[in-house]
Amino acid sequence: MSAIDDLMQEFGRLPGIGKKTARRLTYYLLKQPPGDVRQLAGAVERVADEVEACSNCGNLSDEDPCGYCRDDRRDPSVVCVVEEASDIAAIEKSGHYDGLYHVLGGRLSPLDGVGPDDLNVAGLAERLRDEVEEMIIATNPSVEGEATATYLQKLVDQIDEEIQITRLARGLPVGGDLEYADGVTIAEAFSGRREM
Amino acid sequence: MSAIDDLMQEFGRLPGIGKKTARRLTYYLLKQPPGDVRQLAGAVERVADEVEACSNCGNLSDEDPCGYCRDDRRDPSVVCVVEEASDIAAIEKSGHYDGLYHVLGGRLSPLDGVGPDDLNVAGLAERLRDEVEEMIIATNPSVEGEATATYLQKLVDQIDEEIQITRLARGLPVGGDLEYADGVTIAEAFSGRREM
Repeated sequence: MSAIDDLMQEFGRLPGIGKKTARRLTYYLLKQPPGDVRQLAGAVERVADEVEACSNCGNLSDEDPCGYCRDDRRDPSVVCVVEEASDIAAIEKSGHYDGLYHVLGGRLSPLDGVGPDDLNVAGLAERLRDEVEEMIIATNPSVEGEATATYLQKLVDQIDEEIQITRLARGLPVGGDLEYADGVTIAEAFSGRREM
Repeated sequence: MSAIDDLMQEFGRLPGIGKKTARRLTYYLLKQPPGDVRQLAGAVERVADEVEACSNCGNLSDEDPCGYCRDDRRDPSVVCVVEEASDIAAIEKSGHYDGLYHVLGGRLSPLDGVGPDDLNVAGLAERLRDEVEEMIIATNPSVEGEATATYLQKLVDQIDEEIQITRLARGLPVGGDLEYADGVTIAEAFSGRREM
């Protein structure tokens, strides 16, 4: 296969990138200085070579333990459990959390054949035996995310009844419009209402 | 910079890829087998290393002369002039052309400081001294594309008055809707109407 067709095919394998976008990206790169293109190739290769799951929390990083686990300004008594490493970036952007993380690497989904053994749960159980006082469950607000949250709650209750288990609040998204919110979200917003 | 941030930044430099897409692509790659990721890196690198402009027609290819110039089943008496190498793929897909190509590498655009010397025009003039009987101008239907077409027409008339100069038809796009066509396109469709 020619180098151009090869790259178009590789780009076309990425999620959300169709044939036309793959062609556009390829021809864009063809017009760039070869040094810039090699820089992209190097960045892709570096990710394949250097990034691994943190042996403590499961976050993807080129350091082990990862930067969050090594940062002693973070509060080690709180662990926030997320489905994917990419969720951490979204939480960090909010700037409202300074505890540690634990990445499950997915969610319980019997239909897709994903059970507890497929998730990074053993590592979580291990960590909770230490100094953790609160576990914040930040799985996605989906059916699978809820099932995963319930499973974790039962698991942690068995390990240590004194660990406080919390879940991120459900409600209206900020900047959203009540008129366009779905019924379940509105119901959650009502049941979770707070005094002003 | 960490390997993950580095790749997100590199992806974010590509056209039409914002911060969120760059993050999504990066984390997608992080979940793929390293071999697949290295394959993408290799394809990007190959394009930087191997692809160059064809010394005859200006098409981007990993062979010189390119596949179209070397293909003796193609009709060498017709040359289709396009702005970019990527335009060739679109024309080939239509399956209605079997002549040769000439890639200008852009269009005349005084506002962007692009003059005739910045385009692959000298090479075209050289080629037209040979066996070419018809030059099909397939520049884009934009102001710059039209200006480029007019320039080429004058240039070729000076070189050899016997070369036939044609231009791709303007009109309603197939599958389009008359109701949503702009006035200029409809006017072109009228003036270019053909007997049935």
